[in-house]
Amino acid sequence: MNPTFASDNYSGVHPEIMDALQRANPGHVGSYGADPLTAEATKKFKTLLGEDIEVFFAYNGTGANVLGLSAMTRSFDSIICSDLAHINVDESTAPERFTGCKLVTIPTRDGKIYPHEIEEKIQRVDDQHHPQVRVISISQTTEYGTVYSIDELKAISAVAKKHNLLFHMDGSRISNAAVSLQAEFRAFTRDAGVDVLSFGGTKNGMMFGEAVVFFNTELAKNFKYIRKQGMQLHSKMRFISAQFDALLTNDLWRRNASHSNGMAKLLEAEIRQSPKAKITQKVDANGIFVILPQEIIPALQEEHFFYVWNDKLSEARLMCSFDTTEADVRSFGKKLRELLK
Amino acid sequence: MNPTFASDNYSGVHPEIMDALQRANPGHVGSYGADPLTAEATKKFKTLLGEDIEVFFAYNGTGANVLGLSAMTRSFDSIICSDLAHINVDESTAPERFTGCKLVTIPTRDGKIYPHEIEEKIQRVDDQHHPQVRVISISQTTEYGTVYSIDELKAISAVAKKHNLLFHMDGSRISNAAVSLQAEFRAFTRDAGVDVLSFGGTKNGMMFGEAVVFFNTELAKNFKYIRKQGMQLHSKMRFISAQFDALLTNDLWRRNASHSNGMAKLLEAEIRQSPKAKITQKVDANGIFVILPQEIIPALQEEHFFYVWNDKLSEARLMCSFDTTEADVRSFGKKLRELLK
Amino acid sequence: MNPTFASDNYSGVHPEIMDALQRANPGHVGSYGADPLTAEATKKFKTLLGEDIEVFFAYNGTGANVLGLSAMTRSFDSIICSDLAHINVDESTAPERFTGCKLVTIPTRDGKIYPHEIEEKIQRVDDQHHPQVRVISISQTTEYGTVYSIDELKAISAVAKKHNLLFHMDGSRISNAAVSLQAEFRAFTRDAGVDVLSFGGTKNGMMFGEAVVFFNTELAKNFKYIRKQGMQLHSKMRFISAQFDALLTNDLWRRNASHSNGMAKLLEAEIRQSPKAKITQKVDANGIFVILPQEIIPALQEEHFFYVWNDKLSEARLMCSFDTTEADVRSFGKKLRELLK
Amino acid sequence: MNPTFASDNYSGVHPEIMDALQRANPGHVGSYGADPLTAEATKKFKTLLGEDIEVFFAYNGTGANVLGLSAMTRSFDSIICSDLAHINVDESTAPERFTGCKLVTIPTRDGKIYPHEIEEKIQRVDDQHHPQVRVISISQTTEYGTVYSIDELKAISAVAKKHNLLFHMDGSRISNAAVSLQAEFRAFTRDAGVDVLSFGGTKNGMMFGEAVVFFNTELAKNFKYIRKQGMQLHSKMRFISAQFDALLTNDLWRRNASHSNGMAKLLEAEIRQSPKAKITQKVDANGIFVILPQEIIPALQEEHFFYVWNDKLSEARLMCSFDTTEADVRSFGKKLRELLK
Repeated sequence: MNPTFASDNYSGVHPEIMDALQRANPGHVGSYGADPLTAEATKKFKTLLGEDIEVFFAYNGTGANVLGLSAMTRSFDSIICSDLAHINVDESTAPERFTGCKLVTIPTRDGKIYPHEIEEKIQRVDDQHHPQVRVISISQTTEYGTVYSIDELKAISAVAKKHNLLFHMDGSRISNAAVSLQAEFRAFTRDAGVDVLSFGGTKNGMMFGEAVVFFNTELAKNFKYIRKQGMQLHSKMRFISAQFDALLTNDLWRRNASHSNGMAKLLEAEIRQSPKAKITQKVDANGIFVILPQEIIPALQEEHFFYVWNDKLSEARLMCSFDTTEADVRSFGKKLRELLK
Repeated sequence: MNPTFASDNYSGVHPEIMDALQRANPGHVGSYGADPLTAEATKKFKTLLGEDIEVFFAYNGTGANVLGLSAMTRSFDSIICSDLAHINVDESTAPERFTGCKLVTIPTRDGKIYPHEIEEKIQRVDDQHHPQVRVISISQTTEYGTVYSIDELKAISAVAKKHNLLFHMDGSRISNAAVSLQAEFRAFTRDAGVDVLSFGGTKNGMMFGEAVVFFNTELAKNFKYIRKQGMQLHSKMRFISAQFDALLTNDLWRRNASHSNGMAKLLEAEIRQSPKAKITQKVDANGIFVILPQEIIPALQEEHFFYVWNDKLSEARLMCSFDTTEADVRSFGKKLRELLK
Repeated sequence: MNPTFASDNYSGVHPEIMDALQRANPGHVGSYGADPLTAEATKKFKTLLGEDIEVFFAYNGTGANVLGLSAMTRSFDSIICSDLAHINVDESTAPERFTGCKLVTIPTRDGKIYPHEIEEKIQRVDDQHHPQVRVISISQTTEYGTVYSIDELKAISAVAKKHNLLFHMDGSRISNAAVSLQAEFRAFTRDAGVDVLSFGGTKNGMMFGEAVVFFNTELAKNFKYIRKQGMQLHSKMRFISAQFDALLTNDLWRRNASHSNGMAKLLEAEIRQSPKAKITQKVDANGIFVILPQEIIPALQEEHFFYVWNDKLSEARLMCSFDTTEADVRSFGKKLRELLK
Repeated sequence: MNPTFASDNYSGVHPEIMDALQRANPGHVGSYGADPLTAEATKKFKTLLGEDIEVFFAYNGTGANVLGLSAMTRSFDSIICSDLAHINVDESTAPERFTGCKLVTIPTRDGKIYPHEIEEKIQRVDDQHHPQVRVISISQTTEYGTVYSIDELKAISAVAKKHNLLFHMDGSRISNAAVSLQAEFRAFTRDAGVDVLSFGGTKNGMMFGEAVVFFNTELAKNFKYIRKQGMQLHSKMRFISAQFDALLTNDLWRRNASHSNGMAKLLEAEIRQSPKAKITQKVDANGIFVILPQEIIPALQEEHFFYVWNDKLSEARLMCSFDTTEADVRSFGKKLRELLK
């Protein structure tokens, strides 16, 4: 398969992470997290995000999101999110099934939801007949590849606090957001009022594994049971921990995300050379959304596969990854220009 | 940490599987199973278990069991199992929460459940007030390290068929059972009437990954949705598939299980030299249950860690793994004899 | 409390139904539906709706809706409905919690949803990541007091059939719809393609009790278990059955609904005399939605209580019931005119 | 149908309760409990059980039990009960489905569970893999018609307190227990350490309706949402409240229960005249369990229907009700003696 722009999960594993897995392998260690590597990875997370957090490792993004939300909600609650949120359209009905909650959605144009839209959805508080809004959940980066500014996040957090709600962040591509914002993780998570964060690993060069980070540690009290019940507790935990340890060593998370964001910028430049290709969203991170003439799509996909995001609009989604090369990008741009001639 | 007899999940990953992960790494492939390695691993499963099976990969044993049972049940059903079954005592309430079903348990002395005991539990059929028995679930090998004979399995299957029930096998250590029975997998799974099988990988040398095998493929119809909803669908699926591919290549599954079963036999012989240590269960596979004088346990654990299975009886569980060495076993035996002098 | 226009559930029980409860009382009969009155009420439902239906009695509308939907769905499905649907905004998260499904909502102006809107929501069929649309659920009468025409229903049913979906009707006020349409129940339920119907009793003069009617009887196969598990199986069932028996005797359902619809027409006429009161929806059945000057609302409510439906618009909802009298309506109209002078 | 000894739910409604329903009928009142009768019935409950309780009305016993237990548990918990408990064998899988919890059962000979048996089931506290015991649930009267003494209840409560568990009482026949114990309700509920009580109405002469009483009011905090989500909130609530109001007026609860208990005593005396009929349980309240020669059962059932409780033992269950007459009892005794001649 030629290099693709399909998804950051079409990539394999970064060599430094592969090495970490090898190094983690010899000998016996405690299972389910009672091992030195889990202690070490936890320590690195605390250094990065604050000593008073709690962090739990899970298998995948759906697991991290759904279990994090479970810890934040009661079954009669509702969760406000964008209509494009991964939890709303790409996790089957796992959020509903596991939390019992309703997802209350806000139509989005840029992947973001805004304070005034959120406030409109906070209705019928204390009314036993109506799902009770409990959580605001956003994705950072968004499903449109855009990135909330710190001010935007703080404004959402202010709404949460005003209405006594909790703030959840789906950070499956959070490293890309950090690079985009040129900010410390803390600045746009805990300092912006986030209570629970899904910290993504798989899409930034890991083989498997995501972290659920509790800034609001009161919510973590029973999370070990929720994780086990949610079928997300790995027995040979050292192999998730070793990966996160590597990702947080020598800023590998940053190097990978900088690279993929940079490749997206380059790809944007390539595409902008073709006036017939219309980029529809700001390229804040590692994804590009672009309307292409429908007739060229199959030939372009054959060269470098990607997904059509919106059939009606003929809008494609192009994702760059830690292993996307400049050559891949140039090759894509060249093919695009050929086909659009 | 000294080599332990704590659990087969204290071990790392077999080198051939590590190599397979390395080889699987380069380049882009389709995610969520749309990749050549998943096709190849699926093919190997079909060669092993029959061309007409369906097989799905999941993260862990709890996931494989619970999702397999979900595919077999309706929420108002019940599942008969032993009171020691992993699904009953070691998977939190994931089975109840995800299937809605009640687990109806049979007290066991040897880890097994028997036809007459099962039939006693089949009550109030068609009675709307009462949970409807739908599935018989057994563990092969059992939680006591014993192995059902093919005849025993067929007798259970006959009960299932007679009462129109389904037959589920938790095979987290199924390779150890195959070696113990000196039988083809088919002979004690599909040919013995099993409908759905959790085929274990992690405890036999893999890093992560289990397979849900449907012999009764009618039950698999919606399983892709159940797996996704159950948060057990891996995006970079090639890395589970590569491991299963390696496990099913050159009989690695058999070599690993033969080794761990053999080490258990050796360990049994070592222990039997000490009359004060009383082995309580048949050593059919890779686990040994033994009553030890309580006062020697801490010192023995310090040398080679293991779990006390039953505090009241002072009964220990000793598990051998693919990486247990003869030296480990001899060292344990020597220490035991020293302490019992 | 003065007579209100608050809700049809502010009313008591129609005298003929009260008499039926009295007559049902003496002696012992089988519980859970094994009694002659349940047989009789079932027979009356079959005469009304077709011999080949199946009908089950439940306690309340939420129960009837949620259990009916449970029988139609698998946990990974979704249900299309209006954003104002009772199942979406007035049943807590019972639909999500009990079915596992997502509710996919269509913004409505008149309480109805239309074929082209529904079709837009049918997305990503067979995609394991996405909730699978399975049911279209509508309310007849709608939450805005409007009534779908038979042609509108058939058009929705055509969409359902085209996409292999099921059609659910929340008929908590179905008798009012029948009167409005001047049609037989069959014409706008089974003949219009409805698979499962919640047939309302409580809002049309009963003390408690709703019926779940299966036109698609394949879906009823396990409903007895679903009802019991859903905590909606009454032990002294004769007392629900006696009420339905009375409701379906001498067209009491029609007399009650004709009366309440007629009172709504009269109330509409009273209100239209005041140009400052703006009726916002067609008055098809027994509800009126009207924008009133905010300052007069408290005084008007004090005389005849009603609910403000939409605070921002100062829109009130006025419901007529089987026991609303012409005098109540005239008194309301008079008070309104006084206040608007 | 001749008078039966089948179940207290084969009876109709006590005339004083029927009268109360009639008196409750006229006019409009607030729905969902915002009515004077609900206030009045609540007040009577507080007079009876303590001013600081919280009480909520539900439709039926399964609803009252399951929702009460929901308020007491988290989804990863377990509930200890007898293997004959109504929640274990007669409520489908509603407890598992709605709470997520496992029911851990203790085999019972007399319907009761005892402190030492309970303590044996409290295992693996804080172990994430294992369901966490949270609630002890007992039935008063038990399913075998026996009644826990106040001392027995206090001993169970002491176990609960020692292990930080909660104490739930299924009181579907609690009035019969009160009469049997000749004690105030408080003495064997709140004063005996009960946290949440299902207070039965239907089996003691009501048409429908049970109460969930919280002595531990912290647990009631979100119960209004749990009840609504659990589909147990009645719109025309006055008609449940009116019944409880009547039941708690002039000690109707006591008169009914005294009568049915007394009839059971009389029936016991009748049966004891026949040495071939072997009474198997203490007749503490309104139920009798008796082994009868299998061949006489059909003819006896034809005269006065009852259920065979245990087919293998040929053990019958005979329930007396508020409307059982001395003539019914004499007639049963006479027939029994004829058949046993």
